[in-house]
Amino acid sequence: MDNPALVDVTRGSVTESLHRGSIAIVDTAGKLVCGIGDVEARVFPRSAIKALQALPLVESGAADALDLTDAELALTCASHSGEVVHANAARVMLMKAGLTEDDLECGPQWPKRMEDAAKLILADETPCGLHNNCSGKHAGFLGLARVMGVDTRGYVDPTHPVQREIRLVMEQLTGDTLSEDVCGTDGCSIPTYATPMESFARAFAAFCTGEGLEPLRADAAQRLYDACINEPYMVAGAGRFCTRVMEGFRGRVFVKTGAEGVFCGAVPELGFGIALKCDDGATRAAEVMMATVLEALLELNEDEAALLDGLVNPPVLTRRGIQAGHIRPRQDFLAALKAALP
Amino acid sequence: MDNPALVDVTRGSVTESLHRGSIAIVDTAGKLVCGIGDVEARVFPRSAIKALQALPLVESGAADALDLTDAELALTCASHSGEVVHANAARVMLMKAGLTEDDLECGPQWPKRMEDAAKLILADETPCGLHNNCSGKHAGFLGLARVMGVDTRGYVDPTHPVQREIRLVMEQLTGDTLSEDVCGTDGCSIPTYATPMESFARAFAAFCTGEGLEPLRADAAQRLYDACINEPYMVAGAGRFCTRVMEGFRGRVFVKTGAEGVFCGAVPELGFGIALKCDDGATRAAEVMMATVLEALLELNEDEAALLDGLVNPPVLTRRGIQAGHIRPRQDFLAALKAALP
Repeated sequence: MDNPALVDVTRGSVTESLHRGSIAIVDTAGKLVCGIGDVEARVFPRSAIKALQALPLVESGAADALDLTDAELALTCASHSGEVVHANAARVMLMKAGLTEDDLECGPQWPKRMEDAAKLILADETPCGLHNNCSGKHAGFLGLARVMGVDTRGYVDPTHPVQREIRLVMEQLTGDTLSEDVCGTDGCSIPTYATPMESFARAFAAFCTGEGLEPLRADAAQRLYDACINEPYMVAGAGRFCTRVMEGFRGRVFVKTGAEGVFCGAVPELGFGIALKCDDGATRAAEVMMATVLEALLELNEDEAALLDGLVNPPVLTRRGIQAGHIRPRQDFLAALKAALP
Repeated sequence: MDNPALVDVTRGSVTESLHRGSIAIVDTAGKLVCGIGDVEARVFPRSAIKALQALPLVESGAADALDLTDAELALTCASHSGEVVHANAARVMLMKAGLTEDDLECGPQWPKRMEDAAKLILADETPCGLHNNCSGKHAGFLGLARVMGVDTRGYVDPTHPVQREIRLVMEQLTGDTLSEDVCGTDGCSIPTYATPMESFARAFAAFCTGEGLEPLRADAAQRLYDACINEPYMVAGAGRFCTRVMEGFRGRVFVKTGAEGVFCGAVPELGFGIALKCDDGATRAAEVMMATVLEALLELNEDEAALLDGLVNPPVLTRRGIQAGHIRPRQDFLAALKAALP
């Protein structure tokens, strides 16, 4: 892995830290529109592909059988902040499947924000699986298992029918073979398969256009895309990058973060899928990379430009809230993007 | 900055992320014993040099005038976790100088651990400057200002007598000129000067041996070294790298973390100062780098070996606590260290 430096972290007039990474932008024909760094390297997509992992839930008819709402479908695609609204929605999803939080196998996680953690502390509670940022995805897996009529226990195991189904869909969407030797365990205990970044960018081009997909799958993809666009708060939460971008772009883009600096995106008007990874796993840099890509790709109105401007150049603050530096794309990154795009 | 990859983060059998960095090990003669990456590059030392920033407090006689204990001197060198014991010690230091938490200009910070944050929440309190990981350093600055008889307000400003005094000491210890153009604002609002890493490694070789220092400064350095060794819990807190290493090595090593992946260390029995930085600012990698350096440098007893083994290869865990991977030094890093050391 010898990817270029893409993002600088400055303090005063000095570059204090830097982040390397790779970026793949692929069109619906599967053509690499823009490749920066090694886009053939296998990368764990982690949570950035939750929307693809939710396809079996919808295309099997399970989402309809369970009467899932847009907010609940958005939650299946989410890495949420564990706010009350997220935990409650996951609880309702489980109820619809006749299950409870005890059936979740994702493990507990404290809510992301201190004010949400404080609510648990004041209620003398500790976090449970419902607060895990992946609880919606897991509730979806459990719902699918119920509708499939298989044992829900062990639904996180690579050999469980739900995980086998998801692996099959991912193989079809990426054109890649997902074998055991590229399988790792995700933070929420499900299998994650290291896949060439170019391949999951291709999957997102199909996801947001339906091109090359069977009608049933194209419909399922559209429904999940729309759910995330209609309910962006459920995909992340207050102040979060994914929520802010999907709210601000009103349907023009889908974006989804993943652990260890992965980010995926989709731009239906261009038919582009985007996948990127920061080499060192830093979310702060992956966000700047994604914002920079969107800024380069899209004609922006004033509000969209203002939103992206803040996300492309977030400040580094002192604990008194004074700006001490910037996180920002490097000039050679901007030049490489400009050169690669039509 | 084109430093080598030193630390891998694995998941299953795949390397998921990696961290680059640079390392300088310097002896008391100022000779570079081992240099990996660009050790002449200017780096903000951040909190890793707090023990050096505390020298004026001791050598001026202010520490004695204020009757500071070992625990309090250790706190001046600390990036603590904001536990009750840390916040209370900072409060007492301020009282000894006739001041209160309102005089702190570092800004508030939530305690590092949720259980300590919970204590504040249950008491219906929010964090204040006392909980800021730098509160001991700031209490020391304020104490020095009082004994110097200067206005305490604005003690974080680069032109304040306290900060001018610290800059002078740092220039003497590093042999570097610290000008405005390499000055940034640290997270706690004090100035931080980007300095060649080799230079602050040299400063730590002198700090832990006294060699090349005026007797008054050598005594002050020894007193601060001993304070951190005697009270390692005050330097960080429960479960923290600096605390565990200084507890486990019982005086053989001094280590101190800084923000953005900086780490400094000192090994008196070898007369070595150590400075390192992870390019991308990741603490998880800087810790593995420091543990790996200590393992390469020192003859270890059984307990020391067991302690370092866990710190050289920390596990990557799922939210259920199952091991999903490792953080670990790369083979070429180990080989480079072995080749460089006598």
